[in-house]
Amino acid sequence: MSNNNNNTDMATKDLLTLDNPVFCCYLFWATVLVVKMLLMSLLTALQRFRYKIFPNEEDLFFKNIEVQFDDPHVERVRRAHRNDMENILPYFIMALIYVCTNPNPLVACNLFRVAAVARIVHTLVYALYPVPQPSRIIAFATMMLITFYMAAVVALRTLSFI
Amino acid sequence: MSNNNNNTDMATKDLLTLDNPVFCCYLFWATVLVVKMLLMSLLTALQRFRYKIFPNEEDLFFKNIEVQFDDPHVERVRRAHRNDMENILPYFIMALIYVCTNPNPLVACNLFRVAAVARIVHTLVYALYPVPQPSRIIAFATMMLITFYMAAVVALRTLSFI
Amino acid sequence: MSNNNNNTDMATKDLLTLDNPVFCCYLFWATVLVVKMLLMSLLTALQRFRYKIFPNEEDLFFKNIEVQFDDPHVERVRRAHRNDMENILPYFIMALIYVCTNPNPLVACNLFRVAAVARIVHTLVYALYPVPQPSRIIAFATMMLITFYMAAVVALRTLSFI
Repeated sequence: MSNNNNNTDMATKDLLTLDNPVFCCYLFWATVLVVKMLLMSLLTALQRFRYKIFPNEEDLFFKNIEVQFDDPHVERVRRAHRNDMENILPYFIMALIYVCTNPNPLVACNLFRVAAVARIVHTLVYALYPVPQPSRIIAFATMMLITFYMAAVVALRTLSFI
Repeated sequence: MSNNNNNTDMATKDLLTLDNPVFCCYLFWATVLVVKMLLMSLLTALQRFRYKIFPNEEDLFFKNIEVQFDDPHVERVRRAHRNDMENILPYFIMALIYVCTNPNPLVACNLFRVAAVARIVHTLVYALYPVPQPSRIIAFATMMLITFYMAAVVALRTLSFI
Repeated sequence: MSNNNNNTDMATKDLLTLDNPVFCCYLFWATVLVVKMLLMSLLTALQRFRYKIFPNEEDLFFKNIEVQFDDPHVERVRRAHRNDMENILPYFIMALIYVCTNPNPLVACNLFRVAAVARIVHTLVYALYPVPQPSRIIAFATMMLITFYMAAVVALRTLSFI
């Protein structure tokens, strides 16, 4: 009962502050995913140096090589990185505005955890150690379904403002 | 007069809560655009299965096919999806910080509505039923001009913090 | 002392409002970066018209040309634009949640300024006037290190909510 009152109070003032444990949980896992995404850039750079595949004239750090595209090792990492952008960046916004609707803390925090772990698994099975499907599809679908769930919650709460 | 006072009050406390109708309107239409963007992933997957074009060894769900790129049907959807990322993701941030400047509710809500509808039209005329130009250019320019307008409003309000 | 008290007060209520100078500084420089990113779309369009390289049938605005890909002038701008998406979009979220941890104003504002200027330099030396390395690597690494620093600050503050 008092918990419920507390929730109602929060809805009108403090949701996007460190006083809200749900927001803190979002902050932590969003940070993990930002770091994971930036590491994809470094992984791409690593692959470029390992296989000496550079797309720009000014990047030819080794002698006797030319600009080159479409190397499968580099392109696999870039596809994984693009998939991150397609899914994680909309998720950041969706989860942030989901926090604003003052969701149940237990549900919300576990969604943040599962979504973040799913995308880390996605990177492992796509960019690092390609394994047979459907491992990647499951990891991909997990965050997508969580984002759709959050979208449904927010849309129902704000439908009157269409 | 009282409306003006009310606005001034909101500027100092409640803008990013469900008490602010402008924020609720932003939440609703941002949610619509997040869902639209995620559907592009599913549309890409649909095209891949329809034309049996897969970029990874582990995705070859049918016998006697090889990894393949540059199929025009798949690439068209991917270009539309990339265009979404280039335009909608910066718009999410721009519109959110535009809400923080406490804009006129009528102007702000209509901008959110027009921008979201314009991008849905953009997807229809780009990825689903390609139609002659300038339909796509108009849809593209609509959200871009709205984003530039919001940028101008925010930049003028925060110029002293450069 | 009073400044410190003031900071503690802000942590519990007003961080994402125009009353917070750090947030205003974030708003201004995020706006600059949004505009910079949108200008990349226009720069791509400019290159497409200059070299008459269009990827869609319906975009063939000139007679006697066909759809064409992989033009080096267009692709260079598109690579720069993609690099923006890979780095600036996660930065927007990271910097926003960094503001929520109520950082030291002087440190935070200077990080926002340096990060924004670094990415403008990145665009100049990548898309507009290609210059020898390591100019682009330095510009790229500057924002990335700033984002990693913000991630470390936020992760340490929210680690107990894992």
